[in-house]
Amino acid sequence: MSGSVGIVTTQFAEFDVELRLESGRLLGPLTLAYETYGELNADRSNVILVAHAWTGDAHAAGKNTPDDRKPGWWDDMIGPGKVLDTDRYFVLCSNVIGSCKGSTGPTSTNPRTGKPYNLTFPVLMVRDMVRAQKLLLDRLGIDSLLTVIGGSMGAMQALEWSILYPEMVRSIIPIAGTGRTSPMAIALNALARQAIFNDPLWKKGNYKPEHPPADGLALGRAVGHISFLSDVSMQLKFGRRFSARHGQFDFFGQFEIERYLDYNGASFVDRFDTNAFLYLAKALDLYDVAWNFESLEEALDQLRCPSLWFAFTSDWLYTPSQTEEVVTVLRKLGKPVAYHLIESDYGHDSFLVEPEKFTPKVVEFLQRLD
Amino acid sequence: MSGSVGIVTTQFAEFDVELRLESGRLLGPLTLAYETYGELNADRSNVILVAHAWTGDAHAAGKNTPDDRKPGWWDDMIGPGKVLDTDRYFVLCSNVIGSCKGSTGPTSTNPRTGKPYNLTFPVLMVRDMVRAQKLLLDRLGIDSLLTVIGGSMGAMQALEWSILYPEMVRSIIPIAGTGRTSPMAIALNALARQAIFNDPLWKKGNYKPEHPPADGLALGRAVGHISFLSDVSMQLKFGRRFSARHGQFDFFGQFEIERYLDYNGASFVDRFDTNAFLYLAKALDLYDVAWNFESLEEALDQLRCPSLWFAFTSDWLYTPSQTEEVVTVLRKLGKPVAYHLIESDYGHDSFLVEPEKFTPKVVEFLQRLD
Repeated sequence: MSGSVGIVTTQFAEFDVELRLESGRLLGPLTLAYETYGELNADRSNVILVAHAWTGDAHAAGKNTPDDRKPGWWDDMIGPGKVLDTDRYFVLCSNVIGSCKGSTGPTSTNPRTGKPYNLTFPVLMVRDMVRAQKLLLDRLGIDSLLTVIGGSMGAMQALEWSILYPEMVRSIIPIAGTGRTSPMAIALNALARQAIFNDPLWKKGNYKPEHPPADGLALGRAVGHISFLSDVSMQLKFGRRFSARHGQFDFFGQFEIERYLDYNGASFVDRFDTNAFLYLAKALDLYDVAWNFESLEEALDQLRCPSLWFAFTSDWLYTPSQTEEVVTVLRKLGKPVAYHLIESDYGHDSFLVEPEKFTPKVVEFLQRLD
Repeated sequence: MSGSVGIVTTQFAEFDVELRLESGRLLGPLTLAYETYGELNADRSNVILVAHAWTGDAHAAGKNTPDDRKPGWWDDMIGPGKVLDTDRYFVLCSNVIGSCKGSTGPTSTNPRTGKPYNLTFPVLMVRDMVRAQKLLLDRLGIDSLLTVIGGSMGAMQALEWSILYPEMVRSIIPIAGTGRTSPMAIALNALARQAIFNDPLWKKGNYKPEHPPADGLALGRAVGHISFLSDVSMQLKFGRRFSARHGQFDFFGQFEIERYLDYNGASFVDRFDTNAFLYLAKALDLYDVAWNFESLEEALDQLRCPSLWFAFTSDWLYTPSQTEEVVTVLRKLGKPVAYHLIESDYGHDSFLVEPEKFTPKVVEFLQRLD
């Protein structure tokens, strides 16, 4: 790892369009929040698009103010001399539509009513998020992407990019991804949803922003949190330690793992909107790369670029076998594909926790593309 | 499989005792609900104790009335000519204390106040449940158990029996068990707990029985349900099928797996008490066979009988490695131990769904004990 990209400012692009969604509904006008790192070269050929996960945002690297406690969510990866080297590449990250981090989502004002969309916001698919990102690239005059890289929901976006816009995409790097969300992942999201629906403060999505359904959202987040970890990582980090402040025989006494989930759930409420959380969960559930194609084969046959895939041994949410299902079809179709199963104990979160385990392969892959 | 044990009546034994619990608190008087199948032989040497799981009860086989829709929870296993052959064995199953199926638990009346215990009920450990069962065996004049068999929390009880009363226990058959509950299992129980705590109808345990915190309990049960299944079993049973009654782009539209969880959660509310669910979850979390011993080795060294262990490949709640941890120590201590890892796609629930995969080994094991 090397330097930081320093202080960056999140930018906002406005689009006076009506985007036709997979559902058939129209959404617009649109705002997209985005950040860029590094310089666009003369022939605009050095662009790397970073796609974020469920609760991520456009702020992938650097700090927005000198006082920020933490840098962007993938600062380990992006900067001068880093894996996504901003001395060479122009790195772009935009917040997906449906989120609450500056892009149009359920908290945005519906121009037809002058009120927040809340549940009148349309159900989205990941494909819709990618179509919105395409508007941003058009606006910036970019018609070629050296790669699209991302983990989890970011991996889904990378794959969709290569299917929808094969003429623009020179490679993709999907990490901890899946070709279609499994019933296990859907079941876990269903728990998170129900936790929120059960909270009387949710009011069918019409809560006041200052009175969110905090208990429901915190519990929903805790469900997600567990699915991002693994049996082994919890064993290493918490074991069976009991909270020092509680007695083992107190009814409300907590193990350390419980306190951790509580703490993280509660702090999440301060940084994420409940309806956005629900809309993105729905988009994850609906994810199926074969959607509107005859088959998985037909969908993947759209892809024309090399792809580099990573899965993690302890990821029980988007299991290695799910990545392998896609990789196997790509190989059968004769597409250039590389796949690495990475030994890691950190579950689905491995792509954030142990990037050093896969980044050498990324660097090598990018150099061969140049 | 062969015949049924027919119509059985649940019996109740009252004990005018004060049981000293692991917490140091006293609990009494006690009631234990139990059922028996088959005949006790002359020298009282043909007793098999069946131990139930979290939400199980004393009604393991047969029907309580001719109109019952379903037989007891392990009817596949217990009856004339079946694995636990009631023509040969006297099979006994009792409801654990802390439950709500006839034995003393949080819904029972506290004799000191004349009101239900609710949260004044003491936090229990599995060891306490076994001590209470011992009272019942004493009452019935039984001082030798041919085997103690059970899955999940039943496996914990079997192991505790062999540690606490080695002079009484001639063998144990723990199925899908663990020597100590993992932080992953604790984390999942924490979600279930929080789902209930978040329900305003819970009222810190002081809900009226006719107005239970149904939404919270249903969600808590759904958490458990997911952890009893597996990725593969959900794939086989539900795949990504969307509910035929809902549109894919309806915000409240459900996948089949979601409807299933909803349905099961809601029906659970009619058959189980919320506080009992919480107390038993706590007992599961606190489970550690080494509790009050210096080490796992010292605990397991108490055991003097042969043990037969089963784990299931797709069980991600009490993983095979957890069973193997115990088996490895038992072998190191020179105890006679047999262990079988059973290939099954049905997760933790495999012991209920596919008993035929392990029962031949049980029959063989029991014949050698005779």
